[in-house]
Amino acid sequence: MSKYWWVNHKQTFRHEIDGGYLWSPKTEKNGARSQFYDNMRLTSPGDIVVSFANARIAFVGRVVDYALTSAKPAEFGAVGTSWSTEGWLLPIAWQSLAKPVRPKDNLRDLSAILPHKYSPIHPQTGSGNQKAYLAEISQAVFDVIARLGEIDLQKLPPSEQNADTFGAYVEQLDDCVERQLRNNQELSLSEKDLIIKARRGQGAFRANVQKIERKCRLTGISDPSLLIASHIKPWRSCVSTNERLDGSNGLLLTPHVDLIFDRGLISFLDNGSVLLSPRLNPADLKLLGLADCVATGTGAYLPTQCAYLAYHRANVFLP
Amino acid sequence: MSKYWWVNHKQTFRHEIDGGYLWSPKTEKNGARSQFYDNMRLTSPGDIVVSFANARIAFVGRVVDYALTSAKPAEFGAVGTSWSTEGWLLPIAWQSLAKPVRPKDNLRDLSAILPHKYSPIHPQTGSGNQKAYLAEISQAVFDVIARLGEIDLQKLPPSEQNADTFGAYVEQLDDCVERQLRNNQELSLSEKDLIIKARRGQGAFRANVQKIERKCRLTGISDPSLLIASHIKPWRSCVSTNERLDGSNGLLLTPHVDLIFDRGLISFLDNGSVLLSPRLNPADLKLLGLADCVATGTGAYLPTQCAYLAYHRANVFLP
Repeated sequence: MSKYWWVNHKQTFRHEIDGGYLWSPKTEKNGARSQFYDNMRLTSPGDIVVSFANARIAFVGRVVDYALTSAKPAEFGAVGTSWSTEGWLLPIAWQSLAKPVRPKDNLRDLSAILPHKYSPIHPQTGSGNQKAYLAEISQAVFDVIARLGEIDLQKLPPSEQNADTFGAYVEQLDDCVERQLRNNQELSLSEKDLIIKARRGQGAFRANVQKIERKCRLTGISDPSLLIASHIKPWRSCVSTNERLDGSNGLLLTPHVDLIFDRGLISFLDNGSVLLSPRLNPADLKLLGLADCVATGTGAYLPTQCAYLAYHRANVFLP
Repeated sequence: MSKYWWVNHKQTFRHEIDGGYLWSPKTEKNGARSQFYDNMRLTSPGDIVVSFANARIAFVGRVVDYALTSAKPAEFGAVGTSWSTEGWLLPIAWQSLAKPVRPKDNLRDLSAILPHKYSPIHPQTGSGNQKAYLAEISQAVFDVIARLGEIDLQKLPPSEQNADTFGAYVEQLDDCVERQLRNNQELSLSEKDLIIKARRGQGAFRANVQKIERKCRLTGISDPSLLIASHIKPWRSCVSTNERLDGSNGLLLTPHVDLIFDRGLISFLDNGSVLLSPRLNPADLKLLGLADCVATGTGAYLPTQCAYLAYHRANVFLP
């Protein structure tokens, strides 16, 4: 079942529409949780988002992949620099409305059906709720907007065509980090080489991982040519050279296990038990041949690995 | 069991030593088969190669991954331009000998034990066999050279550390093709974009594949986010934009199936039966959860796909 969402863009409206995404910090400036930011992770591919900015709804979009941890996109520039730099990036395919809708002019239809808690706009005035970013709305609210705005969902790409959005976004983000690294005057050429090789799980990083891990935690495969040296805390999210090259920040995984671990469809507890995301279809787990090993779990992790696993559970694993 | 090999470098001696590989055409200039070139594919990681050039053996190397189809490395430049441009590239870790060995000076020890057929040097004169490139030698021959040259195999990287050599080489080769494409004045920017996206199985190529293939041929998984759009004839080996974007040149594969297909550990017959390479360890196939689906096979392929599969069987599949 698709859900319906309403975003109150901040200053980054044009960037988000042109770039095909939403981006939010993970918490308020003071570190407090925000339902409006937490909602970024509660969306699923296929969900519908209406875009509210400058007092009107002029775009509608379909979520094309799960939210992923991402630095603030570079094109935001100076906008919103008070936010923490790591947030949630949600890939969206946007489409403009035939007739933009001004909620203020349609409160008669909307007021009664807006959510009681976490409403994106004030139900009496129609002004945007300053605290709101991404708010869940009922299908009834969406239907009103769709009728007024003559929204045609057929024009949006069907969710099942959403191919490799995750991979494409991750590559863009990685490329962006790689460019910054290449321009970093404080790193020597040989350091840059090691770090950039680590992006693909090669070189010193892989050698370091192989000192700690010997085989795939799930399949038990030990032939190195069938294994990927996968970062636990993603390469793009690492904050230092040490994190990018640290053998404790890696697992040797068979490629299908690597994919579902990178996408946050599984994670691990410190004792080695496997965490399964509700987003992973149990039938697919079986087709992947992993149902048995997931139930068995793996050996416990070293304390140095557990710090990275905690990051993975909080920032990569899909709740 | 490791095998022992002897290479007679041609003009590209320095390139091969410095670059960490051997490269040969696939056939003689007239298209005839050559055992010395076929041998490139009969090596395995861990095998030992002695390097003969300028009448002496001055290097020894360990094969670090299976031979892969590759254009002639760019650094060869004008050398050997009469060869066909597609050949076998064999990744090797080289090490110089403490004491280079001149076979001509040691014929008393070598003559009797050199191979009768396909010998790399003439057993009486010690001159290089003009036709020879990579020749298999017995352990006895190697032992003589090792004794004379004071070879210490411990100094070579152990074969089991040979991590992701295949992936690293493929990326280098892909990067090289991508640079050529970017510099190609005959392609428009949008064409370049499509072709470069196809390298990662994204964009138009993936959309084209999805029109023909719906699920992984082996696991049956159909969730697009768990599938890779994999080229049958590798992206780097394609000779035209059409081949790089052709949906018939792709399969939707789960990542572990994609890896063993790309590495040539499996291939398919036109009728859909699975070909297993003798290089794929049956125990690993079981750990990958693929033993059953491999036995079952898949549906037959379309005639347009069969042309690409024929290429895969001849040039990617490991005999």
